[in-house]
Amino acid sequence: MGPVALRVALLGCGVVGTQVVRLLTDQADDLAARVGAPLELVGIAVRDTARERPGIDPALLTDDAAGLVARADIVVEVMGGLEPARELILAAIEAGASVVTANKALLAQHGPTLYEAADRAGVDVYFEAAVAGAVPIIRPLRESLAGDKVRRVLGIVNGTTNYILDEMASRGLSFDAALAQAQELGYAEADPTADVEGHDAAAKAAILASLAFHTRVGLDDVACEGITGVSADDMRWAAETGHVIKLLAIAEASADGVLARVHPALVPLDHPLAGVRGAFNAVFVESEAAGALMFYGQGAGGAPTASAVLGDVVSAARHRVLGGKGPVESWYADLPLAPADSAVTRYQVRVAVADRPGVLAQVAQAVAAHGVSIEAVRQPAAADGATELLITTHRAAESALAATVRAIADLEPVEQVISVLRAEGA
Amino acid sequence: MGPVALRVALLGCGVVGTQVVRLLTDQADDLAARVGAPLELVGIAVRDTARERPGIDPALLTDDAAGLVARADIVVEVMGGLEPARELILAAIEAGASVVTANKALLAQHGPTLYEAADRAGVDVYFEAAVAGAVPIIRPLRESLAGDKVRRVLGIVNGTTNYILDEMASRGLSFDAALAQAQELGYAEADPTADVEGHDAAAKAAILASLAFHTRVGLDDVACEGITGVSADDMRWAAETGHVIKLLAIAEASADGVLARVHPALVPLDHPLAGVRGAFNAVFVESEAAGALMFYGQGAGGAPTASAVLGDVVSAARHRVLGGKGPVESWYADLPLAPADSAVTRYQVRVAVADRPGVLAQVAQAVAAHGVSIEAVRQPAAADGATELLITTHRAAESALAATVRAIADLEPVEQVISVLRAEGA
Repeated sequence: MGPVALRVALLGCGVVGTQVVRLLTDQADDLAARVGAPLELVGIAVRDTARERPGIDPALLTDDAAGLVARADIVVEVMGGLEPARELILAAIEAGASVVTANKALLAQHGPTLYEAADRAGVDVYFEAAVAGAVPIIRPLRESLAGDKVRRVLGIVNGTTNYILDEMASRGLSFDAALAQAQELGYAEADPTADVEGHDAAAKAAILASLAFHTRVGLDDVACEGITGVSADDMRWAAETGHVIKLLAIAEASADGVLARVHPALVPLDHPLAGVRGAFNAVFVESEAAGALMFYGQGAGGAPTASAVLGDVVSAARHRVLGGKGPVESWYADLPLAPADSAVTRYQVRVAVADRPGVLAQVAQAVAAHGVSIEAVRQPAAADGATELLITTHRAAESALAATVRAIADLEPVEQVISVLRAEGA
Repeated sequence: MGPVALRVALLGCGVVGTQVVRLLTDQADDLAARVGAPLELVGIAVRDTARERPGIDPALLTDDAAGLVARADIVVEVMGGLEPARELILAAIEAGASVVTANKALLAQHGPTLYEAADRAGVDVYFEAAVAGAVPIIRPLRESLAGDKVRRVLGIVNGTTNYILDEMASRGLSFDAALAQAQELGYAEADPTADVEGHDAAAKAAILASLAFHTRVGLDDVACEGITGVSADDMRWAAETGHVIKLLAIAEASADGVLARVHPALVPLDHPLAGVRGAFNAVFVESEAAGALMFYGQGAGGAPTASAVLGDVVSAARHRVLGGKGPVESWYADLPLAPADSAVTRYQVRVAVADRPGVLAQVAQAVAAHGVSIEAVRQPAAADGATELLITTHRAAESALAATVRAIADLEPVEQVISVLRAEGA
């Protein structure tokens, strides 16, 4: 008989909840290996148990959230809103369950109460998914920087406004036009107030400031200005002076104390935050010893948020299974190592060729003969009599690419393979 | 009487060790609050105890590393090299001490042995500082992504080569010229082989691949190619085709198994890794549910590396003090909240003014009168009769800046304050 399963209760089954269920199911074996015991989803609390949910076993659904919480080791709250989320989480803590929540509004409002209740009960409350979705920022602030002194946190923590500002900057749209487009594409709600007025970012700023400075900072303590006043002219001027405009959540400590604010800000083009495009999130941290750090990723969406939730579930579960034992992992996967030439990549090959007609076609044919597909062949204007070809391939196995390069080198009109570079990240 | 202090032993006292001592001293109160018990540095093992080390109490120095290890709760290894580091760490583990190490070469070679010994002994081995210095990447891979499936890791993990490639790309230097410059500035060693041939990056690739795929990957399993063959022409061609060349450490899982490699690669200019400049490091992770994540920061240097080491020391110490208790923190700092207008920032103010001589000077004077220093006033060419001024200030308190804007608005030749934006991140 294996170890006893840990009972997981899910509160809420929206976009994030559905993905949490999927990951709990798809990754069940991996999760059990990482935790040291299987995770068993014992129920999902929803308001309407009759509604059909694709991929969800209806037998798991219940409208008795309190009853579900009472029979769980780990409670995962992805229902959102202040109540009944607060009440259910407190009940879970008092019953000795660990809690994982993605509820930024609740934490910005009642975080300190919940953390103190968890402290007293000796259980964990994890909330990586509450700020910047999949981007691991809570764990670095709480743990990685625990021996350092954070000075300042600058975050792009709202994907909707970042998308809008990005469209304004890159395509010269007005705020209204960019908002309308974001709404059409589903990046902005029909009522976009919480995003464009900065309220969503303010809740995250409160959580970030609390964590970075170990100080109770609530939503009402955050000075907040949205992006509705940003004009296309502002954007043009920002570009003219080497900046881009971003909505920043800022938490900082000065001689006066801790300050949290949200407002649009000019960011220099060479700052790492300036390159954060579209609906992505990023949190930039300035600390005394580590210097500048940045964390980047998807700030919203079902699967990314569920990934952060599951990471927290594994941490909470490991604590329950292993007690004080640290996160050292056994090599449970121990996959085979693949041969080096099995890598799949793209090549950019530069060759010196004889300057006569038909050479480009001849080289292209040699490449195709090896089953490697060409993205482009460029023939730059010849400098001092020499002629070069620049061949960029599509993705293929390293072995096929290497064979292709050898074949090219052997072609009669090819004088020399000048350089071979792999292309990654596209 | 407070809680019993945890005894910390430091092995090695070079650039990183010295900074570890400084942080242990400077942050002693904060560290004690975070851990729940004071950390006491009980000794520093060095080869030459007679040499004077600024800021280090000579009474702490010892050449008896084994004896020091025997009387520690937490052993911090920053001496580097394979032996005696391996032997001392194993002795520490067997004696029941927790271990924090920054030794990438050791982990790439003997990591699995050490982790298994720690597993058996039920102690922690932490090594955040071994890959990408201050950049928290080990913790996210081990914990944040524990409920997800990593597909691929692309890392810029060697600052020396990134600096050299960056200089080649931005200033058109040859490899030799860029290397010479890096050596002059202290970014490259007199013997740069380990960096420019990719060996340092290969050790990190082995650690990243091991962690990402829970599979034993050693240094010898990493296919490795350095940057000595990258020419100024390659760089020009990369730019021409919308790329930049970076030395990447790549770990990926395919149907064939796990593959780790290091080589120069073309990276598209709009990829987040393309913007990683100079001696910075970054690790880009592609995972199934979370999608793209990136972690960015200083990859080397005494203080950044010491920050990562201290974060690990706090984690190890908390485990020892609190047993299975999670990382929930009390609000021990609970700093005052600063008034919103105490924020220090820069303003960019756009105003519409009457088109006549002397207006620029008049506005500048009004700004100066409020003790706000001007960085620039620009007067763009007037379009359709209207005239605008763009005033950028230096850093000042929000209250002074707001008062300045009011004063500008009241000036006779100022028709309208069109927009006010704060500038951050410079």
